[in-house]
Amino acid sequence: MNHEPPYYAVIFASTRTEGDQGYAAMAARMVELAAMRPGYLGADSVRDAEGRGITVSYWSSLEDIESWRIDSEHLAAQRMGREKWYKEYSLRVARVERAAEFRPDPRP
Amino acid sequence: MNHEPPYYAVIFASTRTEGDQGYAAMAARMVELAAMRPGYLGADSVRDAEGRGITVSYWSSLEDIESWRIDSEHLAAQRMGREKWYKEYSLRVARVERAAEFRPDPRP
Repeated sequence: MNHEPPYYAVIFASTRTEGDQGYAAMAARMVELAAMRPGYLGADSVRDAEGRGITVSYWSSLEDIESWRIDSEHLAAQRMGREKWYKEYSLRVARVERAAEFRPDPRP
Repeated sequence: MNHEPPYYAVIFASTRTEGDQGYAAMAARMVELAAMRPGYLGADSVRDAEGRGITVSYWSSLEDIESWRIDSEHLAAQRMGREKWYKEYSLRVARVERAAEFRPDPRP
């Protein structure tokens, strides 16, 4: 993920409910579908043992984000998220203005 | 963390090296210092068992972010980060345009 700004980030911070309840399979499917969308640039995603997670996905434009938001499979997943999988979440759309990476040469 | 956009997000995605090497104490100190800065609005932070982490901090303005970036204790921590604590990281500054929260009423 090494694109020149500006581009867009969707910042999704969530806390899972207990148990899987079909979550893992649907999450994998959403990753797969998102990666096929026009304008998808990449994502960073982490979840800890307590069920708190942050996923940041990167997109070329607001239009690409909106078109993914209203995809029918994605809408069904969002509904399941609110009904079963998440205790709470926050969702933010942000315009990336600057980006830097640190990836040193392999240490001796 | 319930502010009206626009505001700014610093998205820090990293992978830790092995062992603590003073990291936990410094990370706690940085959280404490950041929270006292002008313009600091809040943060979401998650690290998984494999050492991958995402921290997103929220700020009122780019000036507040820059002034925290060049804080002397913070600069020392950044140097230690590159020398010892992180295998790699990415850092992005983004302008939050839209925000939504889902926090249902307690279920019966």
